[in-house]
Amino acid sequence: MIKVSILGATGYTGSELLRLLILRSDIEFKYLTSTRLVGRAVTDYYPHLKNLSSLAFTEYEAEKVLAESDVVFVCLPHGHAMTIAKQAKQYPVKVIDLSPDFRLDDVAVYEEYYEVNQTASDLLPSAVYGLTEYNREQIQSADLLANPGCFVTSALLGLLPVMGSAHINPKSIIIDAKSGVSGAGKSATVANLFAELQGNFKAYNVLRHRHIPEIEQELQKFSLDPVQVQFTPHLLPIERGIFTTIYIDLKEDVSEAELRELFQQQYVNEKFVHLLDKGQLPEMKMIRGTNNCLVQVQVDKRTHRLIILVVLDNLIKGASGQAIQNMNLMFGLDEQKGLNLMPLTP
Amino acid sequence: MIKVSILGATGYTGSELLRLLILRSDIEFKYLTSTRLVGRAVTDYYPHLKNLSSLAFTEYEAEKVLAESDVVFVCLPHGHAMTIAKQAKQYPVKVIDLSPDFRLDDVAVYEEYYEVNQTASDLLPSAVYGLTEYNREQIQSADLLANPGCFVTSALLGLLPVMGSAHINPKSIIIDAKSGVSGAGKSATVANLFAELQGNFKAYNVLRHRHIPEIEQELQKFSLDPVQVQFTPHLLPIERGIFTTIYIDLKEDVSEAELRELFQQQYVNEKFVHLLDKGQLPEMKMIRGTNNCLVQVQVDKRTHRLIILVVLDNLIKGASGQAIQNMNLMFGLDEQKGLNLMPLTP
Amino acid sequence: MIKVSILGATGYTGSELLRLLILRSDIEFKYLTSTRLVGRAVTDYYPHLKNLSSLAFTEYEAEKVLAESDVVFVCLPHGHAMTIAKQAKQYPVKVIDLSPDFRLDDVAVYEEYYEVNQTASDLLPSAVYGLTEYNREQIQSADLLANPGCFVTSALLGLLPVMGSAHINPKSIIIDAKSGVSGAGKSATVANLFAELQGNFKAYNVLRHRHIPEIEQELQKFSLDPVQVQFTPHLLPIERGIFTTIYIDLKEDVSEAELRELFQQQYVNEKFVHLLDKGQLPEMKMIRGTNNCLVQVQVDKRTHRLIILVVLDNLIKGASGQAIQNMNLMFGLDEQKGLNLMPLTP
Amino acid sequence: MIKVSILGATGYTGSELLRLLILRSDIEFKYLTSTRLVGRAVTDYYPHLKNLSSLAFTEYEAEKVLAESDVVFVCLPHGHAMTIAKQAKQYPVKVIDLSPDFRLDDVAVYEEYYEVNQTASDLLPSAVYGLTEYNREQIQSADLLANPGCFVTSALLGLLPVMGSAHINPKSIIIDAKSGVSGAGKSATVANLFAELQGNFKAYNVLRHRHIPEIEQELQKFSLDPVQVQFTPHLLPIERGIFTTIYIDLKEDVSEAELRELFQQQYVNEKFVHLLDKGQLPEMKMIRGTNNCLVQVQVDKRTHRLIILVVLDNLIKGASGQAIQNMNLMFGLDEQKGLNLMPLTP
Repeated sequence: MIKVSILGATGYTGSELLRLLILRSDIEFKYLTSTRLVGRAVTDYYPHLKNLSSLAFTEYEAEKVLAESDVVFVCLPHGHAMTIAKQAKQYPVKVIDLSPDFRLDDVAVYEEYYEVNQTASDLLPSAVYGLTEYNREQIQSADLLANPGCFVTSALLGLLPVMGSAHINPKSIIIDAKSGVSGAGKSATVANLFAELQGNFKAYNVLRHRHIPEIEQELQKFSLDPVQVQFTPHLLPIERGIFTTIYIDLKEDVSEAELRELFQQQYVNEKFVHLLDKGQLPEMKMIRGTNNCLVQVQVDKRTHRLIILVVLDNLIKGASGQAIQNMNLMFGLDEQKGLNLMPLTP
Repeated sequence: MIKVSILGATGYTGSELLRLLILRSDIEFKYLTSTRLVGRAVTDYYPHLKNLSSLAFTEYEAEKVLAESDVVFVCLPHGHAMTIAKQAKQYPVKVIDLSPDFRLDDVAVYEEYYEVNQTASDLLPSAVYGLTEYNREQIQSADLLANPGCFVTSALLGLLPVMGSAHINPKSIIIDAKSGVSGAGKSATVANLFAELQGNFKAYNVLRHRHIPEIEQELQKFSLDPVQVQFTPHLLPIERGIFTTIYIDLKEDVSEAELRELFQQQYVNEKFVHLLDKGQLPEMKMIRGTNNCLVQVQVDKRTHRLIILVVLDNLIKGASGQAIQNMNLMFGLDEQKGLNLMPLTP
Repeated sequence: MIKVSILGATGYTGSELLRLLILRSDIEFKYLTSTRLVGRAVTDYYPHLKNLSSLAFTEYEAEKVLAESDVVFVCLPHGHAMTIAKQAKQYPVKVIDLSPDFRLDDVAVYEEYYEVNQTASDLLPSAVYGLTEYNREQIQSADLLANPGCFVTSALLGLLPVMGSAHINPKSIIIDAKSGVSGAGKSATVANLFAELQGNFKAYNVLRHRHIPEIEQELQKFSLDPVQVQFTPHLLPIERGIFTTIYIDLKEDVSEAELRELFQQQYVNEKFVHLLDKGQLPEMKMIRGTNNCLVQVQVDKRTHRLIILVVLDNLIKGASGQAIQNMNLMFGLDEQKGLNLMPLTP
Repeated sequence: MIKVSILGATGYTGSELLRLLILRSDIEFKYLTSTRLVGRAVTDYYPHLKNLSSLAFTEYEAEKVLAESDVVFVCLPHGHAMTIAKQAKQYPVKVIDLSPDFRLDDVAVYEEYYEVNQTASDLLPSAVYGLTEYNREQIQSADLLANPGCFVTSALLGLLPVMGSAHINPKSIIIDAKSGVSGAGKSATVANLFAELQGNFKAYNVLRHRHIPEIEQELQKFSLDPVQVQFTPHLLPIERGIFTTIYIDLKEDVSEAELRELFQQQYVNEKFVHLLDKGQLPEMKMIRGTNNCLVQVQVDKRTHRLIILVVLDNLIKGASGQAIQNMNLMFGLDEQKGLNLMPLTP
């Protein structure tokens, strides 16, 4: 029985962890913290569990939470996980951080983009980047895991198979990303009201988005040549899902088949990431509610470009599902445990 | 040129007034107040007006606003219009109140349901109830107008034609109402976030809603027998529109034709309220973006019930459009001025 | 290993069965028929299963399907199941019919409402009505199961606990129902296009709906006094879910507690049907993607009415989930098998 | 009084013309043709016009329609306008074609992309391309007008101001376009059902879309160097609107101010096309229901790219609104007549 606590259990990634783990018989919840709903029962969210669950949301008390848990998921805004991870060093507890605090190797870049001090830089070397399909070995022995965000997971799963290829120009990458609204979190703002977003569509943070340095950092690790990314996020009037359209210039004539083969090799044995058959195109609802990521790859001979389309559920493969995938590895379990989910269609 | 000020010009009813009036050549805006966006330009909302409008949102300064305006629209939460109306007595300005402050004749009922003191009860006798189709004469000479809300307008336009009929049981009225989200206003709450409401549907305030006493008060004025209303509001995942399904027990056998005739007589010459032809059913998008209200009437011979279906746009005929209709009357203009709108379909 | 065939596997109820059963290790699919997509692979729908499933959609050949299957789900329009059930008599196969062919006891009523001949009336006595919570014993031994539809399941689960009560007037029942669009099926019609329904809301079949006789038939079985139902369906711009608001006149003063107790007794041990705690209100997304049904009950002392709110997922508890619940019983399995699902929120 | 006929008056562009023109006092409708709804009254669509309009949909009879109309709008699928334009040569009637039949100068390209014969190639030289802001003089004297489509209008209004600039690389243009569902027309297909598209998002025709040659043809007219366009359309779950994100490589260092100035000069006096102020970002609902097009321009110094964002309403500025703008010019009227519309927000 793995004793699990979720810090920030009523935000969207926190409640998604709860949703995905609550019926598992090998998981026992210890603490579900929430500043907003302290004292409220979990069954206010999930009334159908009334005969099963007597849990209530609590405040975060470090000594209790860290001492009594085997693993703590941090689902808080940036800036909190640094403190928690430092406290956790004194306990035999693993920390899975869904916030960005331990994703950026370069302290200066973190501090510039997030406008807080990186107060736990001593822990950075031991933090493992949790893009599961590319980092399994390290993840298995991690005590502090930096779980990648949704946009970044989508970009990396689409791009990494070709980053080592001599055929592409790694300075030409354009990522045109479209995200569902839950990616913006559960804080109450006028901009995210239903009446504002229904029927609407927009771009935001057009030239400068916090995820650019993280994407470039991770892509660079797989590329010999300098990488540069243009990243434009857009907000879709749907609840969940990310669709990413990626454009890369090809340096020379190369067949689609040759490039597809790189993806095929990379993903043929993966359970959650799949290259679509030729002719298929990904759709958001093909992955809604699942930990799956679908990738399609096409070469435009006319324009000499590679076009990559990626879809995943921002709250699952882009956050809480990948976190569980990583937890499974960290505890020696089957990586797929609790994640064999079918998409909700229609 | 009518000098118009809007108090609360960035909420949904306030900005709807702005939207509907801004292109009228006989209207000049004086003050558009907003606590949230003081100093921001109107063209932040409507960038295409950049060559036309140099207005900015301001704070409310009574002596300026009331002295320089011919009419003030109050689009604020309940409790504010009482003060404003009292201040306005010292100026030759008309007040059109879109809040509930002057809708309820009975001070005790107002104070019970809205939990504030009715501090302007001396003005109640002079306040005119602005259900335009039923109150034109009084509206024309009104200085203080209580504009009905969306649920109430919908209920009254559907029910008033039969309230005097001996065939119905006025204690059996059930109003099952479904409203778009803009009816909840523009305040930032988690409950009204896109990610919460998309794909969702719910009832709220099931037994006790603030609009019940207002509906009963107005219906009672047209009925000899005591009226009692069951009112259940529901929240629809759409931006605007109210659909109301009304059930009334018939006391005795009466033909559908006979009851339809009552509606026909009432509305045949109206420009904004229409009885649908037999066989037609109202749909929300038939009236989206317009000041129109569509009504259908059917008798169920099997169950001896009258069923009335009503649709209107909660922000227009249910709020700002009716307020303009009333303003037109109060200033001796054509009642339809600026309100000949076509529904946005699809 | 249970050998399962689905007739009409690409409609919404058929593909929902596929979705819910495909990962079960005790189920083997034999035939998935589809007139529209013969020859197409299942992985065109579910690309992430490409390494798991080699199934393709086929035509219906009775002798093969019925001989090689342990159970056949009929997900076809009305009129087909009668033929199939007659053919099935010659094989040791169970038939679970999601169409209305075997739901109405009265042949004349079926023929009037569905405008086809009831050609299998000899099978009607052996057909078992599959409202699981009320009919477990019969279902366990059924060979031919009439699975109730979504509106009817919703109405019955909300009403049956009080149908035997002397406090209610069973002739006063009003059911104001709101359904997601998938309830209309997957046939291509202009009326169900996205551009028509987004932002829209409407009632349909206002006085006369095919489900009225089925609701009255089943309610009557639990009532000593004559039952009469007013049923008004509305179409919601959401993909799945039914919300039902029920009004019933109370004959005399009766406490809410007393009526709640009837629901409590009925559902306290149920896994899928739950009475909400006092103060909670059901919302559609509380049950989206699950086999759960949530019920709330309130007494309005002012109007002497009982108000019942019911939510369920029309494709699961209202169709395919309940069909699986019934299949589980028919094959001696745990009724909950494969149906412990968490709602997709947000 | 201009006598107007609409061929295909019940599709989305046809009914949008009807919606926008029906309240104009200088327009008289002669024929509204529809193969689907022959004989049905216009008031089935717009019940609130019941006291105003007695029009019904009819079949197309060339000799009547062309003889009795001053202008005919062709809102039919490609392939029909060629015949109609040839018939129209015998009458003093103007033809405004919203289909693609007269948009492509090169007969071979038209026949390749649309897979029909260009049977009216003799009329091509006299057909005027109706991108209003760039072609007013020719439009004023046109008898046969080829009205551009929604994707193309969006791309051209965003790109034309810089096509003559030496700073951009015209072979590097990437157009990532996102369209509302009404762009797909009103034909009944499973793929466009509400239950399929709600919550969904996808790309389509990724490498090869019919609008690519039209975009390249028109851009080339303004560029000295060869133009090449990558165009990827995506389908948004909204009813109307196109959002276009355009990426262009800059050849050398050039300030944002210098490029913005090109747009400023081009659009400063336009009533419907506007360059947004620095810091503003376009949103779909800023233009919903209007003939406006909003453009924002940003230079990314880090990546040496120009990013252009464009929004317009696909049914208005992208189709019927622009057609009316053109009609106004062709009949010597104020170009803005009937098109001063405010966006529907929320």
